[in-house]
Amino acid sequence: MPPLDLSLAQKVLDSQPFSVLLQARITAFGDGQAVLEVDVRDELLQQNGYLHGGVLAYAADNSITFAAGTALGPAVLTSGFSVQYVRPATGRRLVARAAVVHAGRRQAVARCDLFTVDADGGETLCAVAQGTVLSAQQS
Amino acid sequence: MPPLDLSLAQKVLDSQPFSVLLQARITAFGDGQAVLEVDVRDELLQQNGYLHGGVLAYAADNSITFAAGTALGPAVLTSGFSVQYVRPATGRRLVARAAVVHAGRRQAVARCDLFTVDADGGETLCAVAQGTVLSAQQS
Amino acid sequence: MPPLDLSLAQKVLDSQPFSVLLQARITAFGDGQAVLEVDVRDELLQQNGYLHGGVLAYAADNSITFAAGTALGPAVLTSGFSVQYVRPATGRRLVARAAVVHAGRRQAVARCDLFTVDADGGETLCAVAQGTVLSAQQS
Amino acid sequence: MPPLDLSLAQKVLDSQPFSVLLQARITAFGDGQAVLEVDVRDELLQQNGYLHGGVLAYAADNSITFAAGTALGPAVLTSGFSVQYVRPATGRRLVARAAVVHAGRRQAVARCDLFTVDADGGETLCAVAQGTVLSAQQS
Repeated sequence: MPPLDLSLAQKVLDSQPFSVLLQARITAFGDGQAVLEVDVRDELLQQNGYLHGGVLAYAADNSITFAAGTALGPAVLTSGFSVQYVRPATGRRLVARAAVVHAGRRQAVARCDLFTVDADGGETLCAVAQGTVLSAQQS
Repeated sequence: MPPLDLSLAQKVLDSQPFSVLLQARITAFGDGQAVLEVDVRDELLQQNGYLHGGVLAYAADNSITFAAGTALGPAVLTSGFSVQYVRPATGRRLVARAAVVHAGRRQAVARCDLFTVDADGGETLCAVAQGTVLSAQQS
Repeated sequence: MPPLDLSLAQKVLDSQPFSVLLQARITAFGDGQAVLEVDVRDELLQQNGYLHGGVLAYAADNSITFAAGTALGPAVLTSGFSVQYVRPATGRRLVARAAVVHAGRRQAVARCDLFTVDADGGETLCAVAQGTVLSAQQS
Repeated sequence: MPPLDLSLAQKVLDSQPFSVLLQARITAFGDGQAVLEVDVRDELLQQNGYLHGGVLAYAADNSITFAAGTALGPAVLTSGFSVQYVRPATGRRLVARAAVVHAGRRQAVARCDLFTVDADGGETLCAVAQGTVLSAQQS
């Protein structure tokens, strides 16, 4: 497979039916970083009108995987991650910005900041995550 | 709000639009434990035909929250969790079994085992998680 | 290196100067499980007279690594772990019981329950952890 | 208790016997941040001559707690944390830099970067962590 660029990364995302269901898109990809965005809509909420934690967890997981993919190549396998929610998530759009903090030959560690963006473009941090991604080449 | 039982817990789940989108159901609830199930269907998969990690993360998060709710009451707020994926998830159904390991007045810690169930009812562990849930009563 | 047994595992532990400083010992080892114990003494405490969280974190990390070593062999590298403290830790002895929940060729995932034991042998859960360990054979 | 400054923070650290055993010191404290340092010496190593993971875990835990203390006040209780090791830790000194990413009334979430510093002052990232700290005022 060729190295990924933003256009190919979006194609990979579009080949994930669950990402299509959530209508996720990748808006930046490269140099150890990936940004994944999801528009807030009713069917992604929990019972109090906030974005469901599961949507944030999805965005953390997937943006960390894609960020690691910029370093490890397209064949990767997310080993696990931790997420801490810091505020109820409300706004127009969820933006998950992931960045690799270290990449070796076999694995990469990445962090993710999750923001919601309001109608005026103001951003509010709603969760932070960190995770480990393995290269699937060797398995 | 009255203490939750299985029927009320399912009503809370049904009031989460994201859980409705995923067609999640609660099959056990009480005494520090909650079991959440999701049938595997195409729109929940990733690009290689496995259940998307985000679905597992959702099920871990939500089952931990409900398990904590059996101890802390209905007004809870998940603080965060960690999930480790151990195998690609494939099968007919995802079953997330969460159990409280400790509950105090202000917070509960719970663990979750995530299994996939095949056509013959055989279960395969695909992920493990642990998380912390705060009582929202005091905030 | 030969496969590890309890006696060899204790030798590996004794070759870790930090484990010697903490006077840790291994009391069970094999079949995906390892038990690590540390006697509570003044120099392991924090400012309120409880066992310092760092001692619990050490015991979680090391017991998870040894449990994984029963499955992956002696050359392992801990990738990371999460720990949740559930109670202030007080008593005579800290016991960390780790068990592998899944081991593949390249990595193992293990959980750990951390107990303190009082003068009468009564055990109290004080923390839970889970972590990932990589085989170092391939790197 | 008065608000903490660097001098008082060092006094709190000195009142933790385990921090005295490790000879830890606080070199910065305030505005949501705390830096904890430990000189590398033989008794803190593991069997291959690297700093033991338990020392890194201690430094992550304690620096996160102190960073949270700048926001929540001196009476805090660490709920838990996750740490990912990215490189074997070797050098003269371990530096753990923790910073609060969000602080509310009841809890703070902080991240920590752990570096080793060599003889020439060069820094190498060896682990990253994130954790949650509760205010103990209310319990």
